[in-house]
Amino acid sequence: MNLLIFLLLLFCHPAYASDPDARAVRTKVREYRQQNEVQIIRDLVDLLAIPNVAANQEDIRRNADYLAVLLQKRGMKTQLLKADAGSPVVYGELNTPGADKTVMLYMHYDGQPVNPENWDSDPWQPILRDKALESGGVEISWSALKSPIDGESRIYARSASDDKSPITAVLTALDALNAAEIPLSVNIKFFLEGEEEAGSPNLAAILEKYKVLLQADVWLFCDGPVHQTRRNQVVFGVRGVTGVRLTVYGPNRPLHSGHYGNWAPNPIVLLSDLIMSMRNTDARILIADYYDDVRPISETERKALDESPDIDEQMRNELGLAWSEGEGRLEERIMLPALNVRNFQSGGEAARNAIQTEATAVLGFRLVPDQTIARVRELVEVHIRNQKFHIVTETPDLQTRKTRKKIVKLQWEKGYEPFRTSMDLPVSKALTRVIEEALGEPIVKMPTAGGSLPLFIFDRILQTPLIIVPMVNHDNNQHAENESLRLQNLWDGIEMYAGILARLGQVWQ
Amino acid sequence: MNLLIFLLLLFCHPAYASDPDARAVRTKVREYRQQNEVQIIRDLVDLLAIPNVAANQEDIRRNADYLAVLLQKRGMKTQLLKADAGSPVVYGELNTPGADKTVMLYMHYDGQPVNPENWDSDPWQPILRDKALESGGVEISWSALKSPIDGESRIYARSASDDKSPITAVLTALDALNAAEIPLSVNIKFFLEGEEEAGSPNLAAILEKYKVLLQADVWLFCDGPVHQTRRNQVVFGVRGVTGVRLTVYGPNRPLHSGHYGNWAPNPIVLLSDLIMSMRNTDARILIADYYDDVRPISETERKALDESPDIDEQMRNELGLAWSEGEGRLEERIMLPALNVRNFQSGGEAARNAIQTEATAVLGFRLVPDQTIARVRELVEVHIRNQKFHIVTETPDLQTRKTRKKIVKLQWEKGYEPFRTSMDLPVSKALTRVIEEALGEPIVKMPTAGGSLPLFIFDRILQTPLIIVPMVNHDNNQHAENESLRLQNLWDGIEMYAGILARLGQVWQ
Repeated sequence: MNLLIFLLLLFCHPAYASDPDARAVRTKVREYRQQNEVQIIRDLVDLLAIPNVAANQEDIRRNADYLAVLLQKRGMKTQLLKADAGSPVVYGELNTPGADKTVMLYMHYDGQPVNPENWDSDPWQPILRDKALESGGVEISWSALKSPIDGESRIYARSASDDKSPITAVLTALDALNAAEIPLSVNIKFFLEGEEEAGSPNLAAILEKYKVLLQADVWLFCDGPVHQTRRNQVVFGVRGVTGVRLTVYGPNRPLHSGHYGNWAPNPIVLLSDLIMSMRNTDARILIADYYDDVRPISETERKALDESPDIDEQMRNELGLAWSEGEGRLEERIMLPALNVRNFQSGGEAARNAIQTEATAVLGFRLVPDQTIARVRELVEVHIRNQKFHIVTETPDLQTRKTRKKIVKLQWEKGYEPFRTSMDLPVSKALTRVIEEALGEPIVKMPTAGGSLPLFIFDRILQTPLIIVPMVNHDNNQHAENESLRLQNLWDGIEMYAGILARLGQVWQ
Repeated sequence: MNLLIFLLLLFCHPAYASDPDARAVRTKVREYRQQNEVQIIRDLVDLLAIPNVAANQEDIRRNADYLAVLLQKRGMKTQLLKADAGSPVVYGELNTPGADKTVMLYMHYDGQPVNPENWDSDPWQPILRDKALESGGVEISWSALKSPIDGESRIYARSASDDKSPITAVLTALDALNAAEIPLSVNIKFFLEGEEEAGSPNLAAILEKYKVLLQADVWLFCDGPVHQTRRNQVVFGVRGVTGVRLTVYGPNRPLHSGHYGNWAPNPIVLLSDLIMSMRNTDARILIADYYDDVRPISETERKALDESPDIDEQMRNELGLAWSEGEGRLEERIMLPALNVRNFQSGGEAARNAIQTEATAVLGFRLVPDQTIARVRELVEVHIRNQKFHIVTETPDLQTRKTRKKIVKLQWEKGYEPFRTSMDLPVSKALTRVIEEALGEPIVKMPTAGGSLPLFIFDRILQTPLIIVPMVNHDNNQHAENESLRLQNLWDGIEMYAGILARLGQVWQ
């Protein structure tokens, strides 16, 4: 099957390889990049050198002001969008005469907090290595930097990948198109968030407040990594997430398992039993009606899944797994809800002969369209009651414990709703085509990512198609120490974003 | 049913109340005790003042020498029985002209290690309180001590209950019988162990080495507490115990539950599933053939169980439980094997979105006759293999993880075999009768205790009936801080042991 697709791809001479306009854009943009490599990297490094942890608002303000100037230099009108508290969004817009579509480009300029002692270099003093640290990469001094720069070189700094380099890539794409006098095909807007890594606490307020200003025909999220095979990808959705802490109860003091074993109820067993009533070892969720709200996989999504690279065996091998749950490949499995048991705690190492007083587990739910957190919560609670558990939200008192056979305390987390943009929308098709033409090779089309982002907030307030268009390497150590950007991903990103800006408006009819 | 038994007991004027010999012994022994209360307590206090943690061999030797002198004063031949290492057993024997039965009296003179800062008084400087500490007991100075001493007074010291006071009780019983010129009905031997609280590491070696010397017709274990209702009891057996630590495996590094949830195997779920395949929430063990070796409850045992006080409701009330596992009262439930899950560990509090790499639980098995540890282990391992788990004893390497679907590491503990003496033996019947006559009231007859003691070692080497004849209060804080002996238990214990020594040989035919 995969071989067949490969042969079809090889012999059918697909559109992305042949479009003369796309080839012309690519050639011009590449020439621009090759002639300006050192300057492009210096621009990125200057941006990375400004510390950007959202908790430090002085740093955040320096980033915001700096970014506003970068946008203004490209002829954009800018504005800092603020809620009552938190980091400003740096907003910019650039109108294109004759264009009737508006593309919003989302990136974020804040980064994860750092633990500098774990880093091999200062997270706010970017350095360049000739390859990845794990492969023995050696530092190249900035003064020795000269073109051509090997695409396997990497910049090490906080936010090198997540998420400042896409900003540099898009701005460079604009510069390259401008230098080659290639007009944009769309109006563009920038939405540069300043507290994404802090959980976007003011995002909804800002979207509501600036709803009119933020109108666009599509939002492109320039965040996250390309596929593990290093191929570029577009991602059309995310799973939702919520969680609940379960605590079940045994006797109100630990009991000797000799004196009371086979008589005193065991909370570990009660909790294990409850968990196994909710899912089986093959990940099938056993809660009644749980799959009712799962949106069927469309024909286009099915085709995209079938065409996506099969990394199952490689991943299992790497993870020391002889199997994976259920039937179907990872890409298909994440189209379904997941019930993960995150942890289970009862008794300590020293609990030699005791029957425990309580047992706790945290369940993590990943949701897919058209599930909702409210409905999941309802179904789970109905299920738990059907297992004859009495649900409480506070630690039960003695009277409750004496009168209710099985008691569970539930503590629900907030969460993110799932979201998926249809791959059959004109913009979805146009975007995919434009990127493949820009890069001159097929990309991976993922109906959804397995993880969760608050796309539902944008959707709820703006009702605009949302598509993720990432560019950075998958092995970038985002959120951890020694975060890195592989330069070839930056070079490819510039060409990808340039292709989108130059041609999306033409192809999207 | 219980009311019926009560009425039967009330109107049938049972043997224990009427036997004139027994009444005569009781009267004489009580008079002796009442005339010597202060001296008896001083004797006990002197013994308690010698520190007795088995790890301190100098202290242990002081105890052993002191005890040998106490036995010699009662006309006994004594000997210190020693293995190659560890504490000596203080052995003594006293032959009774005309007696054809020999009773071995087991006690231990070592005590649990102490944590003095948790104690209200020095564990090795015994003090007397007019009642229990929890009830506001006030210290009575030794110089103010005078007869009669209230039976609710308590002595606070390490080993006040566990297990030095039975030594004083038996020696006082001998003194009282001697003073009243009441002859013993049996030959007696003493076996005073010096490292019971350290796990009796040299017990088997000593029993083997002195097998001939240690011959007796019955061993009476003067250790442990009376029934929770404060009624005296005899206990005819113990459950065995063993345990196994189970570790099951997921991916070899923690995975993001968004990216891999619904695909990567979850070790918590695999372990919960394995546990629930082994027992249900009602404590029924589901392992094939597991109950095959369980010795049926005899008619006499059934009668004893039915007659024993029903403490289920009181215990559930105290423990905050609306139910208990399975059908039947606690006394009956401990006649069966138990599978207790002692602990369950996977992931920490911070395990926000992870699929864990492993999950661990420790199972504790309580065995009953005629189960054996070897057979339990075999049945458990067969069961686990039938659940399609691959069993390992060391942490599996990557190759094993990549090729075996479900892997469990088993780490078995050593343990104690179960043991039960038949209640239908002549000695069992005679002993029960003699004690009831000595105390003038019915006692609780327990076919087994729920907990575990190494009685099987005595049984294996000596093949002698073994019966537990405790005397101390159940609320004695043994093994913990503020260990106490309620004096009424000492008074009753003296009368009970005196009755056994004076009359067991006559009744046991």
